[in-house]
Amino acid sequence: MLSPEEWTLNKSSQTPLHQQIYEYIQSKIMNGEWSIGTRIPAQRDLAKKFQVNRSTIVYALGELTADGLIESKVGKGTIVVNNTWSLLASTPPPDWNSYVKSGSYQPNIQIIQDINKAETNPKIIRLGTGELSPELLPAEKMQQMFQSRSRMFSLGYSEPKGSIHLRELLSEYLKAKGIIASPSSILIVSGGLQALQLISLGLLHRGSTIFLETPSYLNSVHVFQSAGMNLFGIPMDHEGLLTDSLGRFKRQHNGALLYTIPSFHNPTGMLMSSNRRIDLVNVCKKERLPIIEDDVYGDLWFDRSPPAPLKAIDNQGLVLYMGSMSKTVGPGLRIGWIVGPEPVIDRLSDIKMQTDYGSSSLSQFAVAEWLSSGFYDEHIKKIRAELKCRRDFTIDILNAHFKDLASWNIPEGGFYIWLCIHKQIPIRKLFAKALNEGILLNPGNVYVRNDQQHLRLSYCYASLGQLKKGLIRLSELIQELSK
Amino acid sequence: MLSPEEWTLNKSSQTPLHQQIYEYIQSKIMNGEWSIGTRIPAQRDLAKKFQVNRSTIVYALGELTADGLIESKVGKGTIVVNNTWSLLASTPPPDWNSYVKSGSYQPNIQIIQDINKAETNPKIIRLGTGELSPELLPAEKMQQMFQSRSRMFSLGYSEPKGSIHLRELLSEYLKAKGIIASPSSILIVSGGLQALQLISLGLLHRGSTIFLETPSYLNSVHVFQSAGMNLFGIPMDHEGLLTDSLGRFKRQHNGALLYTIPSFHNPTGMLMSSNRRIDLVNVCKKERLPIIEDDVYGDLWFDRSPPAPLKAIDNQGLVLYMGSMSKTVGPGLRIGWIVGPEPVIDRLSDIKMQTDYGSSSLSQFAVAEWLSSGFYDEHIKKIRAELKCRRDFTIDILNAHFKDLASWNIPEGGFYIWLCIHKQIPIRKLFAKALNEGILLNPGNVYVRNDQQHLRLSYCYASLGQLKKGLIRLSELIQELSK
Ligand SMILES: Cc1ncc(COP(=O)(O)O)c(C=O)c1O
Ligand SMILES: Cc1ncc(COP(=O)(O)O)c(C=O)c1O
Repeated sequence: MLSPEEWTLNKSSQTPLHQQIYEYIQSKIMNGEWSIGTRIPAQRDLAKKFQVNRSTIVYALGELTADGLIESKVGKGTIVVNNTWSLLASTPPPDWNSYVKSGSYQPNIQIIQDINKAETNPKIIRLGTGELSPELLPAEKMQQMFQSRSRMFSLGYSEPKGSIHLRELLSEYLKAKGIIASPSSILIVSGGLQALQLISLGLLHRGSTIFLETPSYLNSVHVFQSAGMNLFGIPMDHEGLLTDSLGRFKRQHNGALLYTIPSFHNPTGMLMSSNRRIDLVNVCKKERLPIIEDDVYGDLWFDRSPPAPLKAIDNQGLVLYMGSMSKTVGPGLRIGWIVGPEPVIDRLSDIKMQTDYGSSSLSQFAVAEWLSSGFYDEHIKKIRAELKCRRDFTIDILNAHFKDLASWNIPEGGFYIWLCIHKQIPIRKLFAKALNEGILLNPGNVYVRNDQQHLRLSYCYASLGQLKKGLIRLSELIQELSK
Repeated sequence: MLSPEEWTLNKSSQTPLHQQIYEYIQSKIMNGEWSIGTRIPAQRDLAKKFQVNRSTIVYALGELTADGLIESKVGKGTIVVNNTWSLLASTPPPDWNSYVKSGSYQPNIQIIQDINKAETNPKIIRLGTGELSPELLPAEKMQQMFQSRSRMFSLGYSEPKGSIHLRELLSEYLKAKGIIASPSSILIVSGGLQALQLISLGLLHRGSTIFLETPSYLNSVHVFQSAGMNLFGIPMDHEGLLTDSLGRFKRQHNGALLYTIPSFHNPTGMLMSSNRRIDLVNVCKKERLPIIEDDVYGDLWFDRSPPAPLKAIDNQGLVLYMGSMSKTVGPGLRIGWIVGPEPVIDRLSDIKMQTDYGSSSLSQFAVAEWLSSGFYDEHIKKIRAELKCRRDFTIDILNAHFKDLASWNIPEGGFYIWLCIHKQIPIRKLFAKALNEGILLNPGNVYVRNDQQHLRLSYCYASLGQLKKGLIRLSELIQELSK
């Protein structure tokens, strides 16, 4: 669906509104932006966008139909069928739509597309969004850093594994977590998601299986599935991923890797216990099952730091460890890292070079300055306190309004509360009803297929006022639907 | 091969050098960075890196062999075979090497790997490198921009197609080239290479064929081949790509797309004539063959701007147009753009979101500021003058020293001269001999398979002094080898 975001009607112009709309769409078609086969947005969406009566739209589209430029097709909506050039020419233009349907990459899941779309509405209350609220992002401090620092940055391509200066700083940073990693075993990537993308392109066969927690963030992205891999969920208990059946699963399902988020798991907020970590590393050693440890939330603890990462327990190069600046300093930086055995890092670095020639040197510079100046430590302390306060606030609301409706965990860090609704209610309907009232939810089925019981709540994005208003209304909606 | 970049010997320490090296490698193995199966760098490479006698290396490796940590295997070099943990345990660790050999992505071509490696040597004279010399990159001006601007940047995720502010500015920028593109038909990407990567993931089937010029930049990267597509080269004459057989080739080879670099082609420096452009667009319309127009060098003209881009001639959405800041302001920004029909841009944007959640917002901010402040125009004028002067300087040297050895084009913009050596000489040997003397070449076979006659020269990277010294020595080497 197309969004005419760049254009608005001139309501004080002499040209009638329907004529302005006619000309706008005609120019889109004639310059090839709306190529043949493109679906025109629905009449009511156009009417809403341009804030005109639907009849104005009907009139404009009627003209375009009379010109032979568009056509309504049953079950397909209104489609561009011609443009000036093709009216004159004898051959039809290329059918881009057949290309759009090709390609190995699967489109985003529908519900995620719906969520992404709703997120562009600035007034919506986002109860499940997994990113820091703009007011918690240190944009001003970043500005300040650029203004005060006199160290020069480079505008050239950076080293294949990323800026050596940044990798040295990360090596220090990781040491504090108990991870011994020299700069040559660290690869700078454009965020945690790209880390997963590189692993899928560089280390795995089509048809191999990735184990993961049930539920898991990984189910909300297509990075492995689009490369032809399968996901297989492993159950969790209150200490984390259950390890007893891993060996059997590996043999039965041709398991290639285990993906886990031990600290402040997305979406459950769970913290894997120290014992479970040791147990997991041992089982995976025994089964020769490599691990991807996703630690993007590890620094966001409230009262005490999490147990040592799996990577710190591993002395065998069993674990590929990944981190990111997205959840702490800002996702706009697009900076993350992968740590692992050098041959693996070398391979991933080669693929990274082949797909985008490395990450932004400006962003790498900024992260290096944050780490070396102490800005990072200062900022992260502030964010921990902020998030803890927001968690407490949210838990209080849950206690007051959800006691009989649902149960939940109390996270010790990170962003998420995994709300389990007691009664069976139609979650899809809940989502739609809430959206209609300006409240955006993240339903459980984004993270585990066919889930009908959970919502991922997050206290990192919405303001306290919005959290209160949104959650109370949510409790009412759940009550209504469970009648 | 592993580069111990992060560590140096302490030559004034009491610990003998061989002991320091022993401990260094032992720790690499014990913490899993050099996992089982990792190949240790060759003795002479280690000796060179650490600047010690080879005997010191032999001694240290002997100790490690005695420990049972490494083993020399005929034809495979010295391999890590054990680590402390695995010496104690009964089960072997995971075999990462089998993973490194998996994955759909092909490793970089050997000669490119060699070139990349040689480029890390700061003293080498780079006669073929396709990026602006660090002294031409406006790092200081960028610094200044960050210091003076008071507009705030965002650290959040940006809109799915990239910053709307930047897309509006690009829409203006493209208008000056005759391209009508509204912001919603523009996608911000992390450089031109990523544009190609997204097209390969999002629009093409495995087994489809991409047409391209012979020779072409595209042969130096694996982006389409790794996704299972074939490349098929089309010959060129002095006006550009030959169009007569395109239709026949399309039918014979299941052609899906044509990739072309009409302005200041990489590697030939060729400028496609205005007539050929019109001809090409007409043929492709007739054959319904979509075009990728790679215009990353388009702004780098010397005396007059190139003819209108194919995209400006196209009114049918036949052309996907791509540009980048890499060749003008700096590759470290990692900012490029794709312009095309909206359904195609929507699809590519979805995949971009699924693979890395968008490009660096810092870089997007910087590019927007450059375009809106006039810094870009100012800078590009300077670069044009600089490059023209370097071209003239280089052509003078060729006239003085290569008259009887080779022929070449005189580029009207961009970076490249395609040197055709008259006598048949072993180019691989020329490459090695030159490298040995500190001169790095880009042989023609990087851009067209089995080429034995060409070198890509570039006048954008090496200093004038280096160009002179390097080219004169090159002429002597060619003479020696053609005897
Ligand atoms: C567990 C986990 N890993 C990785 C990511 C990817 O984040 P980014 O690519 O911004 O670093 C996220 C973001 O939602 C996440 O929750
Ligand atoms: C023709 C052409 N296209 C695209 C690129 C990719 O450049 P970037 O990804 O840095 O924009 C290059 C760089 O060498 C090139 O020569």
